[in-house]
Amino acid sequence: MDYDTPLFFHIMQYAAAADRDVIDLVSGGPDWEPPTALREGLHDYADGDPAEFQYPPSDGLRDLREEIAARRGVDVDRVVITNGAGEANYLAIAAALERDAGSEIILTDPVYPYYPGKAQMLGADVRLVPVADDGGLDVAAMQDAASEETAAVLVNSPNNPTGAVYDAETMEAMADLAEDHDALLISDEVYDHYDYSGRFESALAFDSPHVVVTNSFSKSMAVTGLRVGYAVFPPHLVDAARTRHMLVNVTGARPSQAAVLRALRETGPDYYEASRDLLRERIDAFTDALDAAGAEYIAPEGAFYVFARFEGFPGTLDNVERLVDEAGVACMPGDTFGTYDEWVRFALVTPRAEEAAHRLADYDF
Amino acid sequence: MDYDTPLFFHIMQYAAAADRDVIDLVSGGPDWEPPTALREGLHDYADGDPAEFQYPPSDGLRDLREEIAARRGVDVDRVVITNGAGEANYLAIAAALERDAGSEIILTDPVYPYYPGKAQMLGADVRLVPVADDGGLDVAAMQDAASEETAAVLVNSPNNPTGAVYDAETMEAMADLAEDHDALLISDEVYDHYDYSGRFESALAFDSPHVVVTNSFSKSMAVTGLRVGYAVFPPHLVDAARTRHMLVNVTGARPSQAAVLRALRETGPDYYEASRDLLRERIDAFTDALDAAGAEYIAPEGAFYVFARFEGFPGTLDNVERLVDEAGVACMPGDTFGTYDEWVRFALVTPRAEEAAHRLADYDF
Repeated sequence: MDYDTPLFFHIMQYAAAADRDVIDLVSGGPDWEPPTALREGLHDYADGDPAEFQYPPSDGLRDLREEIAARRGVDVDRVVITNGAGEANYLAIAAALERDAGSEIILTDPVYPYYPGKAQMLGADVRLVPVADDGGLDVAAMQDAASEETAAVLVNSPNNPTGAVYDAETMEAMADLAEDHDALLISDEVYDHYDYSGRFESALAFDSPHVVVTNSFSKSMAVTGLRVGYAVFPPHLVDAARTRHMLVNVTGARPSQAAVLRALRETGPDYYEASRDLLRERIDAFTDALDAAGAEYIAPEGAFYVFARFEGFPGTLDNVERLVDEAGVACMPGDTFGTYDEWVRFALVTPRAEEAAHRLADYDF
Repeated sequence: MDYDTPLFFHIMQYAAAADRDVIDLVSGGPDWEPPTALREGLHDYADGDPAEFQYPPSDGLRDLREEIAARRGVDVDRVVITNGAGEANYLAIAAALERDAGSEIILTDPVYPYYPGKAQMLGADVRLVPVADDGGLDVAAMQDAASEETAAVLVNSPNNPTGAVYDAETMEAMADLAEDHDALLISDEVYDHYDYSGRFESALAFDSPHVVVTNSFSKSMAVTGLRVGYAVFPPHLVDAARTRHMLVNVTGARPSQAAVLRALRETGPDYYEASRDLLRERIDAFTDALDAAGAEYIAPEGAFYVFARFEGFPGTLDNVERLVDEAGVACMPGDTFGTYDEWVRFALVTPRAEEAAHRLADYDF
């Protein structure tokens, strides 16, 4: 996991330079339309009074915080608007370490690589706990890993890269683990709109002073570039998080916040259902083709990634580059996500996902 | 300097709740129009392809970095687009500390309060060095303060809150100081478009591996809420800064970057001159009225603040609240900016600045 020259840039550049058509399944930026109201919100903002071009409150536009608080069933004072879930997770990990109740962050393996990167930057020790074979959380292993050194356990459901969804029982066990070890449960729920299992449970369901939930509108509204996320902190931790947010970023971008606020108010369930249906169809078509290719994969219950491996074809950078050149498909090597160097990750955020799967099915691994 | 409940929120709330008309000279958000091209850039962005709503490169839109690099005369690889100068200064201080060449950050007194806040959050020791009576840098005192423990000296010219502008000789002395003590000179130049003295010199004039320059479009384009800033790092420090930026924020907001790019390309010198003329007139009118009120103040050479004191009327929070209630003028207590508890700061970012000055001239201090 090298953060200096992100591997995904390298692979995207390699794919762009290839002497053939390549389907990009590398990065996680949605390819579908943002809500109409979001575009309208940006237009309205652009015509606003000069005062609207100035600093919003450091913790975000009050109306946006209230809309989020109402939807999540929490007090508005617990909500901090951040520069995407990226900053929300940074603030949450910092909050865990500032409690001086341990310096270890427990993560899953495979893991979204920014988590260990953030934790290490903040001075934490990182402990990776392998997931179960079906991608689900190995609750007993997580419990075994926890100790008085545990500052936080950070989980992501629906999961990037496995597509696993953690049910209520699993999430409650993690909240209990945090309480038992005087740690925080940090629950990154950015893919909460993409649960195909019906089993997703937010960590906010467990009203605990040991739970921080992070989220963003990047995936639900297909706007990773707008950088509007949020964290819901327990009341006793929110002031310190707000201070760090102010000292790092002052505040987040106001045009983005205004546009998301408008979209949040005016976008009906049809929009979210359409995106979910689109992705479910892509996943079905893609995994059908993987079956035809004889690949092993974790069947996604949520999100929009497929974590897979091909017999005798480990997911090394060399092999990923071979897939670009010889199959016309670009994906991410598995060791980006921890120790899974046999695996690769496909991000199904292109209308050509099914075509890519057929190329894989036709490829002689 | 309390970051948990920012004093300026308290004073703005106090002013808003007052039972009379109050002129707000508290916060530093411009009250004039952003460039027309910036509004047009937001409109165009709002109509863009869905792909434009996704992550820009982590270090910012390439075209924006190139426009900045060309204007600043530096290699584009040295430019990182940040979430305002706030994040740029955070990255610069972190870069200084990560060099493991000292843990002390030297700042001026008075000081923009976010600087010591960021430095302390990052684990630095902070040393405040009083400025000269005219607000200028006391170069000898800065040199005396520097030692092998010095990680960075951070200066701000044109200055908030004093309005001082540091000339070429002063800036060169600071660059030399950084080289002599194996430290960084961090030069925050966000008010560079508001130099009324003609003496402003960017630290980039001294081609040194010990110089980091931070800046933003917040003040020059009157868009503090858009959060587009940048840092120019020496080549050997840029990778680590880029990594921290990615791990904290992933990237900055793309609508804001697109709008600033458009404005940077299409806004002529007339726009910047008009803002500068407006502020110079406000400063002249305001300081004339302060003369009439018998106040002492530092005559601003740049930026848009006036740092002043009134005989027998120290700038305590109580007195600031009295000015709200009895004079109808809201300002910032001086101890927000270091040890200057006799002083207050007026931000001239309201068309009613001159009216406020007349209220002060009429007030019986």
